[in-house]
Amino acid sequence: MRNFNENTITDAVLDRIKNTSDPRLKQIFNSLVRHMHDFVRDVRLTDAEWAFAIDFLTRTGQKCDGNRQEFILLSDTLGVSMLVDAINHGSGGSTETTVLGPFYVQNPPEYPLGADIHGGMKGEPLYAEGRVLSLDGKPVANAIVDVWHSDQEGYYDVQQIDKVGGLSGRARFRTDKDGKYRFWSIKPAAYPIPYDGPVGEMLTVQKRHPWRPAHVHFMIEAPGFEKLATHVFVDGDQYLDSDAVFGVKDTLIGSFVKHDAGSGPDGRAIDTSYWTMTYVFTLAPAPS
Amino acid sequence: MRNFNENTITDAVLDRIKNTSDPRLKQIFNSLVRHMHDFVRDVRLTDAEWAFAIDFLTRTGQKCDGNRQEFILLSDTLGVSMLVDAINHGSGGSTETTVLGPFYVQNPPEYPLGADIHGGMKGEPLYAEGRVLSLDGKPVANAIVDVWHSDQEGYYDVQQIDKVGGLSGRARFRTDKDGKYRFWSIKPAAYPIPYDGPVGEMLTVQKRHPWRPAHVHFMIEAPGFEKLATHVFVDGDQYLDSDAVFGVKDTLIGSFVKHDAGSGPDGRAIDTSYWTMTYVFTLAPAPS
Repeated sequence: MRNFNENTITDAVLDRIKNTSDPRLKQIFNSLVRHMHDFVRDVRLTDAEWAFAIDFLTRTGQKCDGNRQEFILLSDTLGVSMLVDAINHGSGGSTETTVLGPFYVQNPPEYPLGADIHGGMKGEPLYAEGRVLSLDGKPVANAIVDVWHSDQEGYYDVQQIDKVGGLSGRARFRTDKDGKYRFWSIKPAAYPIPYDGPVGEMLTVQKRHPWRPAHVHFMIEAPGFEKLATHVFVDGDQYLDSDAVFGVKDTLIGSFVKHDAGSGPDGRAIDTSYWTMTYVFTLAPAPS
Repeated sequence: MRNFNENTITDAVLDRIKNTSDPRLKQIFNSLVRHMHDFVRDVRLTDAEWAFAIDFLTRTGQKCDGNRQEFILLSDTLGVSMLVDAINHGSGGSTETTVLGPFYVQNPPEYPLGADIHGGMKGEPLYAEGRVLSLDGKPVANAIVDVWHSDQEGYYDVQQIDKVGGLSGRARFRTDKDGKYRFWSIKPAAYPIPYDGPVGEMLTVQKRHPWRPAHVHFMIEAPGFEKLATHVFVDGDQYLDSDAVFGVKDTLIGSFVKHDAGSGPDGRAIDTSYWTMTYVFTLAPAPS
C-alpha cells in the first residue's frame, strides 16, 4: 500500500482500520473517515488552511480547564450538540431536552426543599416550584433535581468564584412524596457564551452574536427513568429566536411572573419585587 | 428559529452563518457543517459517544506542546494529511511530496556543505548528496535545504534534547552554484509515532501498529519555486507498505548503499562501515 492519490487514500485508511474489534467503533471510524475526507475533497483544503485548522483545534483544547470547555462550545455553536440531542431524545410526551452547556458541576451541594440558593450572586429574587411526573402523570418522589443558572449579569458562579465566594445559584434537591420541588434563587439574565477564545474568533468571522436567552438549567434523575437535561427559558427574552447554540424549544419557555414586595408563595416576607416560575417536568421511562 | 429537529438543525446552522464575509471561509464552514452533521446522523451518535469525543479532542489539544503536535498525528493517522498533500501537490514532473510530520523545527541551524550534523545522535555514518534542479533540469543554486531525521533507535533530537545535548541530525544547507548539497550524518531508523497519547489509544483500538519506515526529511525552498516538503525513504525497510501515516511513494525511496571502512566519498577517513545515499530533487515553479 503506497502511492496514494486523493481518490485512493480513503480506501487505504478504511482498509487499515478494518481490524477494529469493537463493531460500533469500527462503524463510527468508517463513517468519520469517509465524511472527513469528503469534506477535505469538497473544499479542496489548502496546506495553509489545514495548518490553520490544526492550530485552531490545538488552541481549542488548550483553552479548556476545570471551568471552561471550549470543545463543548464549538459543538454547541456548530449545532452538533443539539443534533446529538435530537437524535437521542424523542419527545414521546416527556419534557423536551436541550444542551447541557459547559457550566454543569458534578455533585452540586444538596439543599433542603425551599432553600435559598443564590449565595453570593446578585439579582431579583425568584421563587421556582413545580413537580416531577412520570408519563402517566404520577409523581416521582425522591428524584434528584440539579439546578444551575446565571446571575443578573449573565455570569455563572464558576466564572467568578472568588467574587461570589463559592458555588452559588447551583444546588441539588430531592423531590418530596408528591414529586414537588421548590427553591428561592435569583432571576437569571441572558448572557454571551465565553467568546475570548477560538469559538469567539469563529463567531466573529461568521458575524454571529454569542448570546443565549436567559434560562435555568435542570438535570433530573430518578431510578427507572431516563435522565433529563434541559432548561426552562425566561419568556419574552430578546434572544429566544437567535440562541447562539440553537437550544430553544417552545415547550421549554417558562412563564415568569413579577410580583410586588410582600409575602412570597411560601410565606416569606420580601421587601423588593420578586418573580415566580412554575414548571412541571415529565420523565421518560429508562430505555430497556 | 426554534424547535429544531435532527433534520432542520443543519439548515438552521447554515442560515446562521450565511453572513460570513469571507467567501472562502463561508464555503469551508458550509461544507464542514453539512459533512459533520451527516456523519452524526449517519452513525446516530449517542450522548455518551459525543461526550467521549469531546474529551478525546480536549486531551488531544492538551497533549500538544513545543515538542509534540498530537493533532498533526491525528490528521496523519487518519489519512487527512496525505489527502491534503495529494490535493495541493500534483507531480507534474517535480519531486513528489509527503507529510511534514510533527518534528520540523523552524529555522534550523545552518551548516556549510559537507558538514557532519549528527551532533549527539548515535548511528552508522551516512553521507548524503545530490542536487536541486528545476523542471527543465537546470541547477537551482543557493536553495535552502532543511534536513531532519531520527537516530538509530528512531528518536528525533527534540524527543531527547537533554540526552543528545541540543539540536542534532537537523540542519539547514544552501546548494552551491551547481545546485549540489552534501552532508554527513547517521542512518535513521524506522520508528513508532508517539503513541502514549490519544492517537495511541486510537491506534490500539484500531489494532494498528504505529511504525513509520526509516526516512530523511527534506524541505527545500528557493525563490521562484514551490516549497517542497518530502522524505527520502530507506529502501528495504519493513514498514514501506504499512507506514502508519500513509506517506510512502515509490519515487521517494532512496538507494542506501553500505560501504566498508576506508575513505569516504569526500576523502574523509572512516574507521567503521558507512552508508551513502544520493537523491536529486526537482522543484516545481511557484504558482503564478
